[in-house]
Amino acid sequence: MRVHGQPYRTIFVADDGRTVAVIDQTRLPFAFELRHLQASEEAAEAIRDMIVRGAPLIGVTAAYGVALGMRGDPTDAGLARVVDVLGATRPTAVNLKWALERMRGALSVEPPSRRVERAYDEAARIADEDVAACAAIGRHGRALFAAIHERRGGKAVRVLTHCNAGWLACVDWGTALAPVYAAHESGIPVHVYVDETRPRNQGAALTAFELGAHGIPHTVIADNAGGHLMQHGEVDICIVGSDRTTATGDVANKIGTYLKALAAHDNGVPFYAALPSSTIDWTIEDGVTDVPIEERSAREVTHVRGRAEDGRLLDVEVVAPGSAVANPAFDVTPARLVTGIITERGVAAASRAGLLALYPERAGG
Amino acid sequence: MRVHGQPYRTIFVADDGRTVAVIDQTRLPFAFELRHLQASEEAAEAIRDMIVRGAPLIGVTAAYGVALGMRGDPTDAGLARVVDVLGATRPTAVNLKWALERMRGALSVEPPSRRVERAYDEAARIADEDVAACAAIGRHGRALFAAIHERRGGKAVRVLTHCNAGWLACVDWGTALAPVYAAHESGIPVHVYVDETRPRNQGAALTAFELGAHGIPHTVIADNAGGHLMQHGEVDICIVGSDRTTATGDVANKIGTYLKALAAHDNGVPFYAALPSSTIDWTIEDGVTDVPIEERSAREVTHVRGRAEDGRLLDVEVVAPGSAVANPAFDVTPARLVTGIITERGVAAASRAGLLALYPERAGG
Repeated sequence: MRVHGQPYRTIFVADDGRTVAVIDQTRLPFAFELRHLQASEEAAEAIRDMIVRGAPLIGVTAAYGVALGMRGDPTDAGLARVVDVLGATRPTAVNLKWALERMRGALSVEPPSRRVERAYDEAARIADEDVAACAAIGRHGRALFAAIHERRGGKAVRVLTHCNAGWLACVDWGTALAPVYAAHESGIPVHVYVDETRPRNQGAALTAFELGAHGIPHTVIADNAGGHLMQHGEVDICIVGSDRTTATGDVANKIGTYLKALAAHDNGVPFYAALPSSTIDWTIEDGVTDVPIEERSAREVTHVRGRAEDGRLLDVEVVAPGSAVANPAFDVTPARLVTGIITERGVAAASRAGLLALYPERAGG
Repeated sequence: MRVHGQPYRTIFVADDGRTVAVIDQTRLPFAFELRHLQASEEAAEAIRDMIVRGAPLIGVTAAYGVALGMRGDPTDAGLARVVDVLGATRPTAVNLKWALERMRGALSVEPPSRRVERAYDEAARIADEDVAACAAIGRHGRALFAAIHERRGGKAVRVLTHCNAGWLACVDWGTALAPVYAAHESGIPVHVYVDETRPRNQGAALTAFELGAHGIPHTVIADNAGGHLMQHGEVDICIVGSDRTTATGDVANKIGTYLKALAAHDNGVPFYAALPSSTIDWTIEDGVTDVPIEERSAREVTHVRGRAEDGRLLDVEVVAPGSAVANPAFDVTPARLVTGIITERGVAAASRAGLLALYPERAGG
């Protein structure tokens, strides 16, 4: 997507054909800066320090991290070491393990002399596949927007989203935001309501940044405000991403998603989750009981990071000292509240039958 | 209620029988400081600068402001002027106008020589009536807690609340928190989940402070987390305050209340609003269409106030620069989502019939 007129991916190989460039997401939204990764250790650091975040982007960064590692030591021992180092950066990201296994599989059958080239090729392929999946999600979601646009007599389609499931979490396009960008590119006017998304504020910081940089009209709201907007007919469609979706269509996503789904249901607003099928966990039936919910640091709630008047980024304390804090990071939206699931193959009903109709190879599994 | 062992009201006449002391709520939760008001202008400033806030407390502060004004000029002109000055401090607080009219009515029939004494008496009466109403709400709500406590086999009653409808918003006890304090005083163990309540963070700053200072176990959560807790059976009862309640039981309250009511309804958790009957607007039928919702400053969303590491209170910017912001301050929870309304006369069903059963004098009005 574009940043102030120039097209970017979140990760790309620089003109030297070697260095891997990423957007430093810890500096957003107040500064747009690239980081140039020269070695696998720097790629590991970028993942660990959340310079890059978002499951797909973490996977691609790890893949390029392996390529950087091959430049230093393309032996079997070197390959094993770089996979270990990169695999230890974040504990739960499914895409991280998956990308590293794919790189290991592709490289282990090559002689060391060919591994550098093959590693860059394979990492680029993983990145391109992610872009293709997100672009397909965008095309399928765009059709929903076109119908709303027509129904509204040509007025803007008003979308509500939660957290950041945009291109900053992926390589390009994003998941929940891919239909927004696709609609915008095809001339359908859109307006996005962006939930702030406490406690980490990914909506206010990342989603608002990427929409603004690409030129998409949007309005940031407190997480508390979405229900009120839907009650007053200000939202035509909700779209969120998903960290894990069950075989029955329950959607685990950033904490607070469930509340917005309830408000959408109560007001007849369609509620969609947009996700690559790699996010579907075909082994799980009941999201509320079976998806483990990460409890994150209390400090994310007790402190807020922002830019002070003098331009410095700093944390301020916002909770009464001594108060206990709970910080569940995700919640589960039951399938009954989900209008549909937008995947790279199309839009499925949020049910076992609906998902299997798009992924028949999963039947009888 | 108690602050570190010592009982306080939010407003009281100091030992000199003249000075009016209030808690400086702009310094909470990081400092507990009293302000001593010596003149009506200082009372007006305390209301305008939100040193005191909460509709009942604003009303009582205005009443004492009139008393302070009478010390300087007890003539009819002085009375008219002080009522004007105090009335212009906050545009929408119903209790402000009501308290000032009551003071004007009481004083205008007295000779100037008796107005100082009468003004202090009348202000004290308004304060005591507020305390009595809140205490009655506490008693009626306590019965609900006792039933839950018994059903849970003696375990703590887990309450979720939103914003601050505690004693800091009133003179003592509070509205939504009165049942919490009443239950606690009578030996029923309680645990309160406190919504942060963005954008102004009254939950994290004020509710968490007052519960902590009084010794009530509580946990602060992001506004996004309440639905997840209810889904997992962690909440026994929700209680919120109300800024305005319709004759049919629709509850206007701090933005985000509606989302919690939806989650309570979806999970079979009883949802109550606690309010003095003065908050009921008997002229309104449909809260969603008829209650005007204040749109507040974008800065409340774009900036967060907190304590920096060096101890200073300061604002940090948290939203991508250039993004538009919407900040509706209240929302309306339809009566169908409200289990009951706790008033000073008892618990009513959230319906016209339910409210009229408690307030028969309003029938046929």
